[in-house]
Amino acid sequence: MVDARRPRPDWAGRLLTVQSRLVDAQVDAVVVSTPNNIRYLSGFVGSAGLLVVTRDAVRLIADGRYDLYARQHIADGSMATVSLERVDRRYDLTLGQVVGTLNLSRIAFESTHVTVATLGSWERAAPGTTWVRADGLIENMRLIKDAYEIEILRRGGKLIAGVIEQLGEQVGSVLRAGRAETAIARDIDKMVEAAGFSGPSFETIVASGPNSALPHARPTDRLLCPGDLVVLDFGGVLDGYCLDVTRMSAVGPLSGQALALFDAVKVAAEAAIAAVRPGILTSDVDTAARDVLTARGLGEAFTHSTGHGLGLDVHEAPRVGRSDPDAREMVQPGMVFTIEPGAYVEGLGGVRLEDDVLVTVAGGEVITPASRDLLLV
Amino acid sequence: MVDARRPRPDWAGRLLTVQSRLVDAQVDAVVVSTPNNIRYLSGFVGSAGLLVVTRDAVRLIADGRYDLYARQHIADGSMATVSLERVDRRYDLTLGQVVGTLNLSRIAFESTHVTVATLGSWERAAPGTTWVRADGLIENMRLIKDAYEIEILRRGGKLIAGVIEQLGEQVGSVLRAGRAETAIARDIDKMVEAAGFSGPSFETIVASGPNSALPHARPTDRLLCPGDLVVLDFGGVLDGYCLDVTRMSAVGPLSGQALALFDAVKVAAEAAIAAVRPGILTSDVDTAARDVLTARGLGEAFTHSTGHGLGLDVHEAPRVGRSDPDAREMVQPGMVFTIEPGAYVEGLGGVRLEDDVLVTVAGGEVITPASRDLLLV
Repeated sequence: MVDARRPRPDWAGRLLTVQSRLVDAQVDAVVVSTPNNIRYLSGFVGSAGLLVVTRDAVRLIADGRYDLYARQHIADGSMATVSLERVDRRYDLTLGQVVGTLNLSRIAFESTHVTVATLGSWERAAPGTTWVRADGLIENMRLIKDAYEIEILRRGGKLIAGVIEQLGEQVGSVLRAGRAETAIARDIDKMVEAAGFSGPSFETIVASGPNSALPHARPTDRLLCPGDLVVLDFGGVLDGYCLDVTRMSAVGPLSGQALALFDAVKVAAEAAIAAVRPGILTSDVDTAARDVLTARGLGEAFTHSTGHGLGLDVHEAPRVGRSDPDAREMVQPGMVFTIEPGAYVEGLGGVRLEDDVLVTVAGGEVITPASRDLLLV
Repeated sequence: MVDARRPRPDWAGRLLTVQSRLVDAQVDAVVVSTPNNIRYLSGFVGSAGLLVVTRDAVRLIADGRYDLYARQHIADGSMATVSLERVDRRYDLTLGQVVGTLNLSRIAFESTHVTVATLGSWERAAPGTTWVRADGLIENMRLIKDAYEIEILRRGGKLIAGVIEQLGEQVGSVLRAGRAETAIARDIDKMVEAAGFSGPSFETIVASGPNSALPHARPTDRLLCPGDLVVLDFGGVLDGYCLDVTRMSAVGPLSGQALALFDAVKVAAEAAIAAVRPGILTSDVDTAARDVLTARGLGEAFTHSTGHGLGLDVHEAPRVGRSDPDAREMVQPGMVFTIEPGAYVEGLGGVRLEDDVLVTVAGGEVITPASRDLLLV
């Protein structure tokens, strides 16, 4: 059942925007295949499905597994009003029938999602059609969050900040020497769920000691030891939208070098957050963090980008990374992205701090308002 | 750390098999991009990465996030011995450099994984190369499990069967009227983890009453009520390999119709399991289940295939479905697949039963040996 008290996404408005862009792109239709793009436009949540949007019609192609689900959700308003086309045998064959029925000849597709093999099967199923790449058509809409999405992300940000504060209260219990990374990760997952999230937005990272120097470590059976830096990187999914934060714990006594590493990353994070405002480039935000680390001799130790967009996907546009002349992107109100500088030094360990930031006309609003202090055990 | 007592995958043998197939396919190399194919061949576990296998070299292209991880795992033997190529800026550019250095001109790629956009970027980064579809090259190897994989899957099968037996003991506590689907799903997830799995192999399904009629339901806040059929579909990942089972619970009193639905699916599952032997077609296994349901007037209610392969992916080859003249596949020793007939009737509910079966020369070995009886509350 849909919670009637919450606002609903403006499916109709989103579909109209797509339809107006079809005219600009000089195509008869777009076949949307990326699951979260389908969800964004129609509310349909499934691992398979194709949404065909023409200038005056919307058809959802899905197989029998989703038939009753889709009919119920259309009826109760938790999906857009779309015509259902049930797949009997193969998606490509049903798509071919729909293309024929609607008499489509120039069709846009998502070349960043459709595989070479799939496009081949569509071409065979719909002979005589021309397939045109339409990359970013829906991603560009998703880049700027609307009021419905901002409400969810702000609400989720407060909830995940609450989990951070809880972790701070559990220094000495959840976080202490002798506990395994996997055990701590499980505890975090429970807190995330208890906070009201439907689940983690990715596999929780707890990386201690030498493992902290691995930016994409997975939790192991390693037990926390004195002197460890401990990266805690986790998130939750709320109403389909992803939050993503990182805080640092450590088991004392810490070396002066480790404390300096933490301090450098904290200052870099604060600098990047302070830099956020509409009209600059996303790479300017990256530069703000990178300059701090470079000035402290840690430029090489910052091996990844400063951040990434958040929304239905835990990684989506915009990229907040080094300047790329092929992909200059302006910071705009309504964008939501992470700011997560890190520094990783083999033999010493790694530090990363991550918050989620909404761009408003006034600048960057940290939607995950929790202390960035070291959770020192 | 790698557990030294367990056998290791035969990376070298697997890579040699690929190399011998390059000769047959008349290509200089294959670029492997599907993460689990990379894992299968090299042990590298990452969300990004490209494995370039030439006739006499193996290069792993990965970005800075994975650099230390890969070096450590190569050193401790939990990855194949491969040469690392670190991505500085973009994967396509590094791939272009590797292609140039190794002087490759005809290169196979995985067209079922590579998107139209990615292939375009590879073509631009490596001008003058010819890209040849090499679909199923590694999937065909993964289709037949080796001794290392069979040991893990049998071990995992026993563990997940143990969770089923535990659920049977918890009729009246975990499973009872008044509990929410989501609460039961959480309990199952905890049991799966306590059994020794690294996590669930997919999002646990608990679908009660009307929701049971949705083959791909997600757990909701609905509370179990008298008369409900309840589908419990869950699995676990052990050492990277996926198990996947379904059992039925119900809250009495059940209607005669509901009991008949359960009985039909149980007989269909048993018939399909009994049919498994090397040399028949996978569609013959499907037919064995479908014939039982059709004879009981439930042919239309069985809206999906009888099963799917299991391995590093929870859905992989072979498909165990209706006869498809374009994809006839022989049942062979070493295959591991699910057998999961179901019947879904709007207004009445749904039933599905699922076991995992290893094909041996003697027939089908159920590696998830647990009672299929209805867990009646």
